[in-house]
Amino acid sequence: MALIVKKFGGSSVATPDKIKGVAERILREKQQGDQIVVVVSAMGDTTDELIDLCTAITDETHGREMDMLLSTGEQISIALLAMALKKLGHPAVSLTGYQAGIRTNENFAKARIVNMDPARVSQELNRGNIVVVAGFQGVTPGGDIATLGRGGSDTTAVALAGALQADVCEIYTDVDGVYSADPRIVTKARKMKEITYNEMLEMARLGAVVMQPRSVEMGKHYGVPIHVRSTFTQESGTFIRGEYTMEEREFIIRGVTHDNNVAKIAILGVPDHPGVAYKIFSALAAANIDVDMIVQSIRNTDKNINDILFTIAKPELNQTKSIIEQLGKEIGILGVIVEDHVAKVSVVGAGMLGSPGIAATMFGALGDAGINIEVISTSEISISCLIRADLVQQAVNAIHNRFFPEKK
Amino acid sequence: MALIVKKFGGSSVATPDKIKGVAERILREKQQGDQIVVVVSAMGDTTDELIDLCTAITDETHGREMDMLLSTGEQISIALLAMALKKLGHPAVSLTGYQAGIRTNENFAKARIVNMDPARVSQELNRGNIVVVAGFQGVTPGGDIATLGRGGSDTTAVALAGALQADVCEIYTDVDGVYSADPRIVTKARKMKEITYNEMLEMARLGAVVMQPRSVEMGKHYGVPIHVRSTFTQESGTFIRGEYTMEEREFIIRGVTHDNNVAKIAILGVPDHPGVAYKIFSALAAANIDVDMIVQSIRNTDKNINDILFTIAKPELNQTKSIIEQLGKEIGILGVIVEDHVAKVSVVGAGMLGSPGIAATMFGALGDAGINIEVISTSEISISCLIRADLVQQAVNAIHNRFFPEKK
Repeated sequence: MALIVKKFGGSSVATPDKIKGVAERILREKQQGDQIVVVVSAMGDTTDELIDLCTAITDETHGREMDMLLSTGEQISIALLAMALKKLGHPAVSLTGYQAGIRTNENFAKARIVNMDPARVSQELNRGNIVVVAGFQGVTPGGDIATLGRGGSDTTAVALAGALQADVCEIYTDVDGVYSADPRIVTKARKMKEITYNEMLEMARLGAVVMQPRSVEMGKHYGVPIHVRSTFTQESGTFIRGEYTMEEREFIIRGVTHDNNVAKIAILGVPDHPGVAYKIFSALAAANIDVDMIVQSIRNTDKNINDILFTIAKPELNQTKSIIEQLGKEIGILGVIVEDHVAKVSVVGAGMLGSPGIAATMFGALGDAGINIEVISTSEISISCLIRADLVQQAVNAIHNRFFPEKK
Repeated sequence: MALIVKKFGGSSVATPDKIKGVAERILREKQQGDQIVVVVSAMGDTTDELIDLCTAITDETHGREMDMLLSTGEQISIALLAMALKKLGHPAVSLTGYQAGIRTNENFAKARIVNMDPARVSQELNRGNIVVVAGFQGVTPGGDIATLGRGGSDTTAVALAGALQADVCEIYTDVDGVYSADPRIVTKARKMKEITYNEMLEMARLGAVVMQPRSVEMGKHYGVPIHVRSTFTQESGTFIRGEYTMEEREFIIRGVTHDNNVAKIAILGVPDHPGVAYKIFSALAAANIDVDMIVQSIRNTDKNINDILFTIAKPELNQTKSIIEQLGKEIGILGVIVEDHVAKVSVVGAGMLGSPGIAATMFGALGDAGINIEVISTSEISISCLIRADLVQQAVNAIHNRFFPEKK
């Protein structure tokens, strides 16, 4: 007997037939005595259709009203899934985010969960119901509906699992687990049986798109195991948890990731005196621009000038460039070079701190493939290299082959 | 400065353009200082589309889940109308039935309003907002969403107007007021400037379809004037209120109504002893069959048997017949005759009690037109006659001409 939270995304419930399929699967997997909470997203294109209605009315952004509108999408799914479960003979009840006790702040369209009060959920479970909860939404202190933004339904599921002290939170998705690299790029990528929250967070930060970092953080906070698995198969996927349950880990490196959404800015000839770097990066922070890799190198010791190189997300390139050029006039620089044909490849593994030579192995793999490294950055559990964008596939494969040699 | 509740039905908000039109009308009509609450139904076919989704999932009826599903229709409309008002520059906020404090019983799909707590509505009005409230829905004591069933949005509007002590509740509809008869049948039908709650209720009971009786009862309960008016024109419609505001009433009779949804049952040769009528009509009541006109006549004094004749709504004819036949064997009757080619024509007017001769005038009009009266029944403010169904149009016109003579 276990308490299990399952989350199904919009493509899993896109049509009435798919909803019936999800209901059948839930009942097929349910063991005697299990308590089940199901979190669902809006059906397929519903959210887009609602956005279209909004666009036909106004070009302005009204967060509160938009959330009032969008939250209907999940409300439709939960009602239909509860009906499908009842039709199959199992008692079920649907609950909105409000009814399920998901309390958020008032940051409409991207609200954060501030508190969970799942009393009604527990009550319905104890009555023998499968409880179907609307993902992506909660209620503000003022009683307004707020949506959680991107990855919101995963966050709902993990937060509920945490608050209910569930045994596991199962995230059903269109991939069957977390891979050692993107399987579309690396044909020999391997599915991981387990990965830690920190490794998953680092992989997400470095370009892996399986799980939104928010829900992984939520899982880490509550210590809830997250099971990422396929909607299409019965197989087990990947468990994300605090530590490994198996005695021996096969690989120190858990994954090779890549990120093409990178642009590089080089500021040439920056005066080398205190406070200049602060001036540059606080101006970017004020504009809400997230800076990733940063390298400062000495250009000319005689003239006391340096070069500063950093990376940002591609869509912020133009804004960044104009801020830097503006600032450059003020502090006096030699020039600005921007470059968006770059990409970042990374290796992630919680064990690399205690395993020397990981960096050397990675650089060696790239070097042997003839790929030049432009920038290097490291964290406790990752190493990243900036390379030319057109070499990404080759780089990821070269690194992956080195860390995940084929079994004999 | 006034507090006005306006209600727009589904056809008035069927498309984004129509929603924009409603928003424009609201702002055009708003006087300086007016406080406005708008109640809206679901957009055009939304409810039917939601029902189709349900039908694709299950053939069972799940009241609570169905209400969870259907209530999204109004939630979409209110969000869009609030956006449209804001886009036009006026502050607005949308509220679900729950947020607007509409408390119902747990009779899902046809819940009744048991209590109103419009504190949030008042708060938002005082902040200068136009408040857009979802019609047709409320919340049960257990925190579930319940819908109010047929005519629910009108009921929401009138109940809100009552609870807020509004100056008037305006019901925008596809007719421009309450007429002295159905204008599709009587070309000379006149629009009434005023009508009392009781007259309107009696007209609705006797076949007029302008307003659901529920919302008129609600208006009567709270003493809120209801203004029934056209979505398509700026003209004033008909005010429904407790008493007439004008010194002189032009007509004693306020309307001539007709109802084709009638069937007649005659039970022949019923033993004339106490308790027999009770047995018959309590059996029908137990089956939830609403009996309208009842006439008992003596068939044969020697044999102590009577005939009992009554009318019901057509769809209940078969069930009624089998109940009566079953019962007939038990109590011993001569036979049962059913007839569904009948219709009821009525005159309604609160003043008829003090005006003798109304009945005679009505019977005279029918007699002069050569129309035979099968059954007669009267209430304090109405007289009804059962006639042959194919003579309805002729009958209604004959009566209307007598009570509403053409102006010279």
